[in-house]
Amino acid sequence: MKINQHYKTLETSYLFSQIRARREAYEAAHPCQKVLSLGIGDVTLPLAAPVAEAFAKAAAEMGQASSFRGYGPEQGYGFLQEKIQGYYKSLDVELPLEAIFVSDGAKSDLGNLLDLFDSDNTVLIPDPVYPVYRDTNQMAGRRILYAAATPENGFLPLPDPRQKADILYLCSPNNPTGAVYRREQLQQWVDYARAQGAVILFDAAYEAFIQDPALPHSIYQIPGARECAIEVCSLSKTAGFTGVRCGYTVVPSELIRDGLSLQAMWLRRQSTKFNGVSYPVQRAAEAVFTPEGMAACRQAVRQYQANALRMHQVLESLDIWHTGGINSPYLWMRCPGGQSSWEFFQFLLERAQVVGTPGSGFGQNGEGFFRLTAFGSPEDTAEAMERIRQALA
Amino acid sequence: MKINQHYKTLETSYLFSQIRARREAYEAAHPCQKVLSLGIGDVTLPLAAPVAEAFAKAAAEMGQASSFRGYGPEQGYGFLQEKIQGYYKSLDVELPLEAIFVSDGAKSDLGNLLDLFDSDNTVLIPDPVYPVYRDTNQMAGRRILYAAATPENGFLPLPDPRQKADILYLCSPNNPTGAVYRREQLQQWVDYARAQGAVILFDAAYEAFIQDPALPHSIYQIPGARECAIEVCSLSKTAGFTGVRCGYTVVPSELIRDGLSLQAMWLRRQSTKFNGVSYPVQRAAEAVFTPEGMAACRQAVRQYQANALRMHQVLESLDIWHTGGINSPYLWMRCPGGQSSWEFFQFLLERAQVVGTPGSGFGQNGEGFFRLTAFGSPEDTAEAMERIRQALA
Repeated sequence: MKINQHYKTLETSYLFSQIRARREAYEAAHPCQKVLSLGIGDVTLPLAAPVAEAFAKAAAEMGQASSFRGYGPEQGYGFLQEKIQGYYKSLDVELPLEAIFVSDGAKSDLGNLLDLFDSDNTVLIPDPVYPVYRDTNQMAGRRILYAAATPENGFLPLPDPRQKADILYLCSPNNPTGAVYRREQLQQWVDYARAQGAVILFDAAYEAFIQDPALPHSIYQIPGARECAIEVCSLSKTAGFTGVRCGYTVVPSELIRDGLSLQAMWLRRQSTKFNGVSYPVQRAAEAVFTPEGMAACRQAVRQYQANALRMHQVLESLDIWHTGGINSPYLWMRCPGGQSSWEFFQFLLERAQVVGTPGSGFGQNGEGFFRLTAFGSPEDTAEAMERIRQALA
Repeated sequence: MKINQHYKTLETSYLFSQIRARREAYEAAHPCQKVLSLGIGDVTLPLAAPVAEAFAKAAAEMGQASSFRGYGPEQGYGFLQEKIQGYYKSLDVELPLEAIFVSDGAKSDLGNLLDLFDSDNTVLIPDPVYPVYRDTNQMAGRRILYAAATPENGFLPLPDPRQKADILYLCSPNNPTGAVYRREQLQQWVDYARAQGAVILFDAAYEAFIQDPALPHSIYQIPGARECAIEVCSLSKTAGFTGVRCGYTVVPSELIRDGLSLQAMWLRRQSTKFNGVSYPVQRAAEAVFTPEGMAACRQAVRQYQANALRMHQVLESLDIWHTGGINSPYLWMRCPGGQSSWEFFQFLLERAQVVGTPGSGFGQNGEGFFRLTAFGSPEDTAEAMERIRQALA
């Protein structure tokens, strides 16, 4: 018996446990002070009413003989695939239903999609980055290269033709930096992937936060992307589904490698190692894409966007270099006065009683930067930003 | 870019599409005859009332700010882990909560657990078998050996010390044969696995159908199993959850290989490639394990058991050799008169207008056998068995 030895190379991330430990130590020493968090990476608003109603109704249906449903299609019910197809159409992207796979969330699919590729491939990952891209590839022993995201490129690295890679990760709007690629920048990535025969894994989980109509929501808005890109999206941030668990992945039929259709491979993978998403969850997701559901979900997103705008304005007024905030729930700021990420964490905790996330936790290029999130309540966000303003003024 | 070449070795299973095609051809030629199915591998009764109510209530909770929940623990909520722990306690199996992982179903976990093992391992799979065991290992390029299940061993193969294997699959009550291992038989497998340093993947998805109190429901009822076995279970057949999607996997802390804890590895896998099961689904699952929920679920199981008993009695009265039926929703019968599996399929379809599943679809040793399932309505099951009796009398 040989276990998967690559697990031995994985580092345990202490980022969030260390944040919690420092916060708890501070609170224990200062029991009268109220600590506010701008570190939350999870939604806080409840499901929109039409969505919760559809969810509860479908759950009740499962208790009636006349409306009970057993195994559903592994790829998702047609009623939901059609709604997702319609959403893409609103972005001027025409997709056949066969390209749309309903999932239990982006994290599952981002991990499981790697089943389709040999371990003997080179992966290119932006740094800083959502740690799942790195860890899932390390689990399979793939070679990993990094694309440096820096203040010089606005934390939006562009392809370097000298870097040869087979699997490319892009996340736009980005976690943790909030930076968003423009069309011509994504076009460079698509052209690079096609020239190398590489596959792009495009994480669009935060696309609902884009406000600038010129910015792309989907990689398929870029010519040539169908021949080289898989897109993973989620209702977690679009519709507050972090605890509901539903997303979708698009694998176009044009995506062929080594003579095999990646769409056919993914269908085979999902029908062998997955049994579809819970029927009532799919009904809840369907309700997100109705006019009433979408309007209600947009309202929640607008609350987070208003938080982000306020945060952006405070950082602007303090003349602090940052990305994100306008088209993203994340703000990525340079730590003032040349502080390291953890020094600034401690500074903010002690001087402003505000908790954020040290950028160094997301990769080497995150050192000296700090992530703030807009998922809190308007009141707490406003107060936290006022405290930051005073501490840094 | 190298794709996973092992996908090229996978065969497309035409079993169920071929069954459907033959049935449709018969129905088109004989529009006035009513064809009945004893081939359904899915539950047909709705969720028990307390379960559907808990599901709908939790879905509605997600629409209220006061009760909304975002990301949950990847391993499952404590409230459900505790109920599963209590269920194991009723089987005299004491498990710490850390050993219990809530999943979206047995199929997902059976596939994903293989992430923990190197491709360079030998897998031992019973033949005939649930095709997922074979396909998931073929996708990773592992060597596969088969343990022959035959009429001579009652379709319950025992370990052959000359066969060296690293990963062993056991399914009891078995799909497709309905045969159930006795304690002393499972003890032989546990002893063999420990002697070889192998890991047993024990599929207990049909344990709720066991009626004989002497038969084991869990591999952990066997001394020594914690050092060598992972158990995968599901609420699909226990509580009609095929469309709801919830199961659980037990990885004991005693399971160490190559100096690594498989429990720690599985936790790392799940927290990297999974984001937990939908909160309302976990509330529905919790309700299964309440006294009212369990009583209601048992009532549905009893209806399927009554079907199975009737099917068993008819086969007995016809003196047809078979396994299953008493402690399982499946019956596995020898095709009468030396017919092949597909010959008997056609015979039953034409003479009795009954559809079942050819045993040859589950592996080489399934040739000459036939699977019947007890998941239909009592009326249809009774009529189908009467037609079979007349056709074979």
